[in-house]
Amino acid sequence: MTVNIGIVGVGGMGQAHVARIRTELAGGRIAAVNDIDQARAERVAAPLGAAVYADDAQLVAAPEVDAVLVASFGPAHEATVTAAIAAGKPVLCEKPLAPTAAGCVRIMEAEARAGAKVVTVGFMRRFDRGYNEIKEAIAAGELGRPLIVHNRHRNPTVPQSYTADMAINDTAIHEIDTMRWLLGEEIAAVRVDQPRPTSRRFPHLADPLVLALVTESGVIAYDEVFVNIQYAYDIRCEVVLEAGTVALADQSATVRRDAAGARHRLTADHNQRFGQAFAAELQAWINAVAAGRQTGPTAWDGYAAAAVCDAGLRALASGGLEPVELIAKPALYA
Amino acid sequence: MTVNIGIVGVGGMGQAHVARIRTELAGGRIAAVNDIDQARAERVAAPLGAAVYADDAQLVAAPEVDAVLVASFGPAHEATVTAAIAAGKPVLCEKPLAPTAAGCVRIMEAEARAGAKVVTVGFMRRFDRGYNEIKEAIAAGELGRPLIVHNRHRNPTVPQSYTADMAINDTAIHEIDTMRWLLGEEIAAVRVDQPRPTSRRFPHLADPLVLALVTESGVIAYDEVFVNIQYAYDIRCEVVLEAGTVALADQSATVRRDAAGARHRLTADHNQRFGQAFAAELQAWINAVAAGRQTGPTAWDGYAAAAVCDAGLRALASGGLEPVELIAKPALYA
Amino acid sequence: MTVNIGIVGVGGMGQAHVARIRTELAGGRIAAVNDIDQARAERVAAPLGAAVYADDAQLVAAPEVDAVLVASFGPAHEATVTAAIAAGKPVLCEKPLAPTAAGCVRIMEAEARAGAKVVTVGFMRRFDRGYNEIKEAIAAGELGRPLIVHNRHRNPTVPQSYTADMAINDTAIHEIDTMRWLLGEEIAAVRVDQPRPTSRRFPHLADPLVLALVTESGVIAYDEVFVNIQYAYDIRCEVVLEAGTVALADQSATVRRDAAGARHRLTADHNQRFGQAFAAELQAWINAVAAGRQTGPTAWDGYAAAAVCDAGLRALASGGLEPVELIAKPALYA
Amino acid sequence: MTVNIGIVGVGGMGQAHVARIRTELAGGRIAAVNDIDQARAERVAAPLGAAVYADDAQLVAAPEVDAVLVASFGPAHEATVTAAIAAGKPVLCEKPLAPTAAGCVRIMEAEARAGAKVVTVGFMRRFDRGYNEIKEAIAAGELGRPLIVHNRHRNPTVPQSYTADMAINDTAIHEIDTMRWLLGEEIAAVRVDQPRPTSRRFPHLADPLVLALVTESGVIAYDEVFVNIQYAYDIRCEVVLEAGTVALADQSATVRRDAAGARHRLTADHNQRFGQAFAAELQAWINAVAAGRQTGPTAWDGYAAAAVCDAGLRALASGGLEPVELIAKPALYA
Repeated sequence: MTVNIGIVGVGGMGQAHVARIRTELAGGRIAAVNDIDQARAERVAAPLGAAVYADDAQLVAAPEVDAVLVASFGPAHEATVTAAIAAGKPVLCEKPLAPTAAGCVRIMEAEARAGAKVVTVGFMRRFDRGYNEIKEAIAAGELGRPLIVHNRHRNPTVPQSYTADMAINDTAIHEIDTMRWLLGEEIAAVRVDQPRPTSRRFPHLADPLVLALVTESGVIAYDEVFVNIQYAYDIRCEVVLEAGTVALADQSATVRRDAAGARHRLTADHNQRFGQAFAAELQAWINAVAAGRQTGPTAWDGYAAAAVCDAGLRALASGGLEPVELIAKPALYA
Repeated sequence: MTVNIGIVGVGGMGQAHVARIRTELAGGRIAAVNDIDQARAERVAAPLGAAVYADDAQLVAAPEVDAVLVASFGPAHEATVTAAIAAGKPVLCEKPLAPTAAGCVRIMEAEARAGAKVVTVGFMRRFDRGYNEIKEAIAAGELGRPLIVHNRHRNPTVPQSYTADMAINDTAIHEIDTMRWLLGEEIAAVRVDQPRPTSRRFPHLADPLVLALVTESGVIAYDEVFVNIQYAYDIRCEVVLEAGTVALADQSATVRRDAAGARHRLTADHNQRFGQAFAAELQAWINAVAAGRQTGPTAWDGYAAAAVCDAGLRALASGGLEPVELIAKPALYA
Repeated sequence: MTVNIGIVGVGGMGQAHVARIRTELAGGRIAAVNDIDQARAERVAAPLGAAVYADDAQLVAAPEVDAVLVASFGPAHEATVTAAIAAGKPVLCEKPLAPTAAGCVRIMEAEARAGAKVVTVGFMRRFDRGYNEIKEAIAAGELGRPLIVHNRHRNPTVPQSYTADMAINDTAIHEIDTMRWLLGEEIAAVRVDQPRPTSRRFPHLADPLVLALVTESGVIAYDEVFVNIQYAYDIRCEVVLEAGTVALADQSATVRRDAAGARHRLTADHNQRFGQAFAAELQAWINAVAAGRQTGPTAWDGYAAAAVCDAGLRALASGGLEPVELIAKPALYA
Repeated sequence: MTVNIGIVGVGGMGQAHVARIRTELAGGRIAAVNDIDQARAERVAAPLGAAVYADDAQLVAAPEVDAVLVASFGPAHEATVTAAIAAGKPVLCEKPLAPTAAGCVRIMEAEARAGAKVVTVGFMRRFDRGYNEIKEAIAAGELGRPLIVHNRHRNPTVPQSYTADMAINDTAIHEIDTMRWLLGEEIAAVRVDQPRPTSRRFPHLADPLVLALVTESGVIAYDEVFVNIQYAYDIRCEVVLEAGTVALADQSATVRRDAAGARHRLTADHNQRFGQAFAAELQAWINAVAAGRQTGPTAWDGYAAAAVCDAGLRALASGGLEPVELIAKPALYA
């Protein structure tokens, strides 16, 4: 059975998903396309023989659409996702599920009314081979309990349009979800340190930042967020347990020895670093849709990440440790 | 367009291909199955809704079969492949194309008669990310010309049924093809050294061996073949150029620090080490079939590898440097 | 010219220094020994043909003593060091120079009265090859200014006698001095985080801790101090600059590939990790004494480290960011 | 007790030894200097207060000389060494002990007549930390017996004066001795492969070469000798045992992440790579002289290396496997 997918938003991320579904993954096809730029929607749809809908609600409702993939602008997510919930169609929504925790709560309420989980949030790192090996090593228990995590989220440069809040909401959100998933508990408080800023930044940014994410049990996950570090897209994570550590390795397939030393390449961007994870995430979702199951991060995960981001923004302003305020977990996600 | 594939041989390798086509790759489906064990063919075919043919020739001829995938026992390859050539159907044949150079010559003659290349030989290493980075580094030219290659082909253990010849024909054949492809030239002579053998071997094996593959231009590619090295499936390759070297890195996604030191895992078998390459090879073949193109190693490549293996067996017996005897390259492969 | 050294304190550290001077280093000899355990002093002195003094002041005053090496218990340092200053004899004092900033101030006052710097403090990491490579990379300027430093100070286990304060005063003091020296500025404030503690600890310890050392210019140097991490003595340091990072590498001379993976050993204790640095420190001091120069960390460095430790102890109690209170730098150290 | 050393030959290597003895090592001093360039001898001797002798025999005989260090031109070694033997004075002779096996035999005959071993040959790699870790790993036995060794001896460039024979006699001689010592057995035969030569060579050189050193028990130690590889002085060694491998690691103390990737420096020359080994060798010799013991490689080791070099030169000419012809081992070295 082939899963017929309607995609909402075919900018860079959306088109990357389209390409994966068409040339790399099993079991799915793009049946319908919607974009705020109608001409772009048509350009993407044409070679696929996919329908084009001017309106995301129409796309969600279209009978040929089995499942919905949301890769539009963050503020537009809530409307599409709640339409999919109402239609009872599985929906994979890129992060953030909604830009605020309040929006995520409304999505959870919609799922509660519908009585079924159909939402998957696109936190692709949960499908990264490295993070999964770390999770397995924690679970194995040989090294005891995790106590500290050291993360680095380094990015070569960001455009002028990148705002101070985005370091939390768009960048650190990945470690926020990954830490919740790796450690199996909620983040209870957040602090944001502002080291001396890079002189190669835009004046409106404080870059780098160092977050401290304190979990319910007291694990502290540090996260260096440095979005203009020039040299590479460099994601690192070391979990410190009671009797050892486990860390992400670099991803290079070769080592070179030349006049610059013994060296290996670092990844240039998130597509290169997480290409395997994006593909695995999408394949898992297609397989789950075909099997009638929900898979991956739920609306609760989207909500919890948003609530931590809210606390992070408060911490960025206050300089102190800010508590994360979570509603009681709805029964659907228990 | 979906490529309908008929598969001949559904043992371990064949079933792995079936699983990839069904759950990981785009654009293909298994339409027909043949195996010398009819019950096994039926078990594999049933969940796929694929036809079962008692005879490989029937499968090749079946109208619902667009392309043929050969994963049967080596001596059976020639018959299936020549049937596919006669039928004008693309065929991906696992190595060896045929157990002897003579068999490969007959296959090339069949392609010559048919006037088109339809054969692809399953040398999956050409699709490995690491080997491709090495090839790009050679092509970039910054480090000058390659002069020496150091290969290691290490395997944990082999079963009792593994014969002395298989170290050349089944194991070293991978480096033989990879060196031809990486260096872009033919291997002209072969020598096989027999170091002190492991005491953990079967009495009928000389293990390890060290091959020296001398190319037309004088590059020497050494290949340590050690099929009972216990510790891991460990494939390594370092190309020595005039001003530096490029080598395969290990493939681990994580690093662990514990009482045993700072360490990363090594791969356990060829499926783990070359899973990415097998998938990329098969996807490239499906895409090429859909586009009406041949892709990957040709029958000439299968022949040349077999001719080098023949020289390797002579060298194993003689202890000296044995020339590789190649026929003139048919025009079809120029 | 041979430098005749009088040593005060011949416990573990003192005896290690004696052994280095006798069998590894040029230009020095142990001429006199003092220890609170007179019998131990005699056991150490006998094979060296060195004099034994019951009192450290006598040793300092002895005419055959050119220079004094202090490796006694911390609270005893001040008396010996001020005696050496009064006698105008060069003195190498193991850290801490004195257990409190106030004691260090008195030592600086003594040097001011004497009008000459004779004190060297034994912060041996300044002589470690790795830290020096990092310092050179910062100074080279290619990667811009340092913004963040990530340190790890991991130790297998500590004895029952290790107190909570020692995590700052005895352990983190090494990173405190090293950061001042690497970054070339003073530390202005300190914070101490207490993650979930290891369950393999003594009840009186909060272990691990994470210090944040904030410099005058706003660089934040984090320091994970984990003194019961079981697996190794593992010292790490990564300096994050505006366009790259430089970090300590592990020190293993070999790599092993076996059933546990590809791995290298980690150091077991500080003598193994910093053996090269201890030897280089002592040799540099002997050479400087012979040449009539002061070398290495001064009494000001000993003082500044003690002042940061004082702030660290307040921060450990308060949970907040505590300012470091420094007196104006005396002219002698400008 | 201070060992008074007379040095014969104070070119680059000799002066490096002088500097080590004066500023880094314990227990020795340069008491006398000889060089074919008398002015140079005087320049070196003056700041040391050492005597200068116009003749090496005079230096050896001088009463203030306890032990002799030979760092002159290879063909001059035999005369100085035999004079030291006759005088009963310990002598450390840089490699080669003598340029031919015949010269080494005469030296052994002199020691036999004197009835005592006083000769140490300067194969400093036996004092390298990495090689010693490999030797310990072999001896531990966990990984079984060694079967193959892969060596690389890579050097940035050589001067025009470097001759084809020197690749064996001056360069590969280091691996020849190290393999004998690591494996604990003699080398029985040698083969030399000539891969395609670098185009960045002098016309009179075949560079690189690959030696195969076959031991009595059948271990094959390969040695890539590439003296114009441009990028670094890069010495590598991987011993392949029955259940794993142990290899030299690189020696860098730091890792850098920048636009060129994640990288560490490689050593530039043999002084940088083997500085620790040279110092340890010399210190061990001084300590042994002081204690009245011989230490390190003996005249037999110097002879055996020379005999393997002789076979290597024959193999370079013949292209085949050449046996090593050794005399029976004199009783003195049993």
